[in-house]
Amino acid sequence: MKYTISVLVENRAGVLSKITGLFSRRAFNIDSLAVGTTEDRTMSRITMVVDDNKNSTVEQVEKQLNKLVEVIKVRTYTQEELISKELMIVKVSANQRTRSDIMNVCEIMGAKISDLSATTMTLELADTPDRVDLFADLLRPFSIIELVRTGMIALQKGSGVISAKGNGKQQ
Amino acid sequence: MKYTISVLVENRAGVLSKITGLFSRRAFNIDSLAVGTTEDRTMSRITMVVDDNKNSTVEQVEKQLNKLVEVIKVRTYTQEELISKELMIVKVSANQRTRSDIMNVCEIMGAKISDLSATTMTLELADTPDRVDLFADLLRPFSIIELVRTGMIALQKGSGVISAKGNGKQQ
Repeated sequence: MKYTISVLVENRAGVLSKITGLFSRRAFNIDSLAVGTTEDRTMSRITMVVDDNKNSTVEQVEKQLNKLVEVIKVRTYTQEELISKELMIVKVSANQRTRSDIMNVCEIMGAKISDLSATTMTLELADTPDRVDLFADLLRPFSIIELVRTGMIALQKGSGVISAKGNGKQQ
Repeated sequence: MKYTISVLVENRAGVLSKITGLFSRRAFNIDSLAVGTTEDRTMSRITMVVDDNKNSTVEQVEKQLNKLVEVIKVRTYTQEELISKELMIVKVSANQRTRSDIMNVCEIMGAKISDLSATTMTLELADTPDRVDLFADLLRPFSIIELVRTGMIALQKGSGVISAKGNGKQQ
């Protein structure tokens, strides 16, 4: 089962190294990781997707994370509770013959064309990880030259929040 | 000056920990970090934005990265050479009175509305880091409840590629 762990941390050098070290020591494989600033410049939010079959292990990692002084809050979610999105930029081979076919795929999938050269097109799509996978599959026949993805980020559905103030750490 | 370091690595447990440890030991502050899969499932691409005034230090980090066996390729870019995008999901307070004002901001900025509740709206925007900053600034008067960003990803402009096959490591 895939879990999404959202960790709110103090924006300090070395904190990321501590957290990835913790996962590495437990041989916990991280499917994707995204680190970005938040509404408060002194804090960063780390979003990790981890795959695990034994629920207990996710709980252990959550406990270990909470022991780090830089960690402000940890929350674990299943996919159903979240609005989850990911961004992909992809460069495909394109010539005058294939350009309009690629444009059709972009239109259907809601992707944007970011750049163009005589032999290539650079496309971007922000959507759920599944739809991003599908878009990459649809482009494969045109020959993908290069592809980069952000890793998934997520917020809770509805009005719920992860970083509710004054709640302290949760385990 | 801000540099974007794009690192192509083997998709193995522990590699992320080695890389973040390397930056941490050198007290090199990472502005943003994104880790995602690539066109080849056995490889991940790590995109880091680092701020540095002494060009030599970026070169040192590049050399250190190239020494890691899991690192396939390292390239450093300035912003001008890249198509750079970032994804943000943001939840704002919204009621019947403010909803249409928020929708106007979304339309002008090209943002999508991902979710709605009686008291909130959840919005998403994929754009350059500057435009994402601007969108967050425009939403601040409506009260931002929660915000998450992916960290920037990038591909080279035009037909150039980072991961050209058979080129080996670059320094």
